[in-house]
Amino acid sequence: MWRNRDVISARDFTRSDIEELFETAKYMEKYAKGRLDVMRGKIMAVAFFEPSTRTRLSFEVAMKRLGGDVVGFWGAEGTSVEKGETLADTIRMLDAYSDVIVIRHRYEGAAKLAAEVAESPVVNGGDGAFNHPTQAMLDVYTIWREFGYVDGLNIGLLGDLRHARTVNSLLEILTNFNVKVYLISPEYLRPRAETIDYVQSKGLKLSFYTNVEEVIGELDVMYVVRIQKERFIDPLEYEKVKGSYRVTPDMLRKAKKTLVILHPLPRVDEIDPRVDATSHAKYFRQAALGVPLRMALIYLILS
Amino acid sequence: MWRNRDVISARDFTRSDIEELFETAKYMEKYAKGRLDVMRGKIMAVAFFEPSTRTRLSFEVAMKRLGGDVVGFWGAEGTSVEKGETLADTIRMLDAYSDVIVIRHRYEGAAKLAAEVAESPVVNGGDGAFNHPTQAMLDVYTIWREFGYVDGLNIGLLGDLRHARTVNSLLEILTNFNVKVYLISPEYLRPRAETIDYVQSKGLKLSFYTNVEEVIGELDVMYVVRIQKERFIDPLEYEKVKGSYRVTPDMLRKAKKTLVILHPLPRVDEIDPRVDATSHAKYFRQAALGVPLRMALIYLILS
Amino acid sequence: MWRNRDVISARDFTRSDIEELFETAKYMEKYAKGRLDVMRGKIMAVAFFEPSTRTRLSFEVAMKRLGGDVVGFWGAEGTSVEKGETLADTIRMLDAYSDVIVIRHRYEGAAKLAAEVAESPVVNGGDGAFNHPTQAMLDVYTIWREFGYVDGLNIGLLGDLRHARTVNSLLEILTNFNVKVYLISPEYLRPRAETIDYVQSKGLKLSFYTNVEEVIGELDVMYVVRIQKERFIDPLEYEKVKGSYRVTPDMLRKAKKTLVILHPLPRVDEIDPRVDATSHAKYFRQAALGVPLRMALIYLILS
Repeated sequence: MWRNRDVISARDFTRSDIEELFETAKYMEKYAKGRLDVMRGKIMAVAFFEPSTRTRLSFEVAMKRLGGDVVGFWGAEGTSVEKGETLADTIRMLDAYSDVIVIRHRYEGAAKLAAEVAESPVVNGGDGAFNHPTQAMLDVYTIWREFGYVDGLNIGLLGDLRHARTVNSLLEILTNFNVKVYLISPEYLRPRAETIDYVQSKGLKLSFYTNVEEVIGELDVMYVVRIQKERFIDPLEYEKVKGSYRVTPDMLRKAKKTLVILHPLPRVDEIDPRVDATSHAKYFRQAALGVPLRMALIYLILS
Repeated sequence: MWRNRDVISARDFTRSDIEELFETAKYMEKYAKGRLDVMRGKIMAVAFFEPSTRTRLSFEVAMKRLGGDVVGFWGAEGTSVEKGETLADTIRMLDAYSDVIVIRHRYEGAAKLAAEVAESPVVNGGDGAFNHPTQAMLDVYTIWREFGYVDGLNIGLLGDLRHARTVNSLLEILTNFNVKVYLISPEYLRPRAETIDYVQSKGLKLSFYTNVEEVIGELDVMYVVRIQKERFIDPLEYEKVKGSYRVTPDMLRKAKKTLVILHPLPRVDEIDPRVDATSHAKYFRQAALGVPLRMALIYLILS
Repeated sequence: MWRNRDVISARDFTRSDIEELFETAKYMEKYAKGRLDVMRGKIMAVAFFEPSTRTRLSFEVAMKRLGGDVVGFWGAEGTSVEKGETLADTIRMLDAYSDVIVIRHRYEGAAKLAAEVAESPVVNGGDGAFNHPTQAMLDVYTIWREFGYVDGLNIGLLGDLRHARTVNSLLEILTNFNVKVYLISPEYLRPRAETIDYVQSKGLKLSFYTNVEEVIGELDVMYVVRIQKERFIDPLEYEKVKGSYRVTPDMLRKAKKTLVILHPLPRVDEIDPRVDATSHAKYFRQAALGVPLRMALIYLILS
């Protein structure tokens, strides 16, 4: 049941919740370039204390495609926060003005605090280093739309798996499915222990690799996140492995024909642009599905 | 009569204007979380040369709840002003594009200049150091909604009464009512002489205090504004009086049970968060009423 | 035919295109302060990597007057571009979310690249140093509305004709009409050779002047653009000619009574404010016509 619910952590949602979301999102795809007038008279507040064009715009478009409207701010500059207002007071104001609040914040727990303060539903548009639940829902939704199912798939995660906020949420959502997860990264850029312990306790099958070449042939999905040179302790180590974390047509020669490559975007150089033209590249479809997925989310929460 | 009128200074409005506004705002409260489709096809331009999240968003939400739409900018950065355009030319452009202009500016007289240039009504969303008329209307509206009347009340203003733009407008609006006003501040942070002379000439009863403890028991309303350490000439003076300008549960033990505490927000530390849970705390209701009050204002001006 | 077309360069449009646009814009003038509900359910994305209040707001207002909605960003700060995303990837996202993209960018060719990437129509809201086609359409539309025709007019362009992005596009649009163009500027601030060669090859009659006094009596239209002191190689040269590039009531004594003065705005000091009150001053009408002109453009492309 989604009605009036806060969306703070991917851990809060069951398989049944997610399936309801996916079925609704599939229905919404018909209206993602049109209009379904079910949120008329409702206002979404976007409180993006940290920049994010893609997440903000897909939420705004989703609300507008549903006939609702949007107010808000992005970047803390020029807001009452700059004058020293607490997050709680800012949220109380937005709560009084709007029907649903989407918050993005660099501090862990900001969305949870907002949800405690607000009477209206609060949606976490990314906070701290570990939570971006709607992105993770979108990631798995894209897989579900590509294959028609999620169970049984081999899903590789490639890159800096420790500092990418989406990876933690994605692993949490995947605990609802019977999948094998391949974590491909330098050892010290693996997900933090707390995440690994949690998802394994939920039965998620994890295996660890440092080189994508070892396993690329087994993967149905390869989810790529950025890996920054600065994260490497030893520059020589970086030089040694960097090729292994940059997706190129050459790397893909060993892949299954049906391999689906995803990326939360924006990408910088971790996927060679020549990959875009291959049948593997599904990250632009993934971005586009952000609108119907978020239309479904808003609809389920507010209607 | 409000139709097609500019809202520049609190001095321009009679008791009858204000009562019409309040009755309309009360009617609008029913729609402040819904939609009343009377501004369809109308566009508000928000020209916020200076930041203000609360004022801007409450105007935007008010317009959208009435079925209208909003365009504009906030922060002068990236606007034609940065290229050296005069305020008059910027306003002429907005006037051509929109049906009503809400302006916020750090210079005294900016709203008046805008109103002279524009054919459409101009609303002052705060300019210079002394004018924020719609905030003052909201302040008195909240009092009216709390008590059902304004006449006969004892209203305390606490904090830096010289530099708070809202205080001047509030005193001006209060000249329309038969109230006793207690100005509680260090001597050199009292309202400027020009304001005091004006409101006294209009018959407003003022008395001056430096310590809230002397009078808190007499107050029906306590309107709190920020007092900044930097404003004190003598740091020792600040240490001596600071407790007297920070509202705490302890300070409130001598207050009437029905005391209403207001604050234009954002607050920093001038009201202890523990006060929020008391029945005195009405500043969040005050903020929330900003939407119906501004819906009423827009409706009266534009319809 | 405008349907589904990108608007990248003024060179791409025929006289017949422009006449269709003008007739449609004239029809739209009736709705420029009202609402014509033909874009309901359509979303415009504004991607203003470079600031421009007037162009952005007139596009936004045009879309909203037509019943559509707008999302987007202005200033690259806080966008995914800042995180290193390519323009192509940003455009792909906007293309997935919206029905039409208006782009403003400081690099030449940005709009063309966007149009190649996007399936939705892309409108150039100004890119690089030479292209601002919708401004040029607006400029000629204003002339057409003032005189009822364009052919046969003597049109002067005054100021820094090399660095003003609008001048190049204006000359290109004017090749569709039988007009005489007087280019009035210091020699080294004439339009670049490529532009001159192109428009002359299309039959546009150009003549060159350094002093407006020589020709002002012949002009039907004087289009003024800013000339910055910094552009002069020799400060003495600036002192010598500056009076010649600043429009004053005095300068206008030799002008035809029917002379129309235009300016793309914002202006700084190149037109004396005393000129505003004369019957020559049409630059504010020109700015106002930006809404119906862009309503027509959006309508022709998207309906």
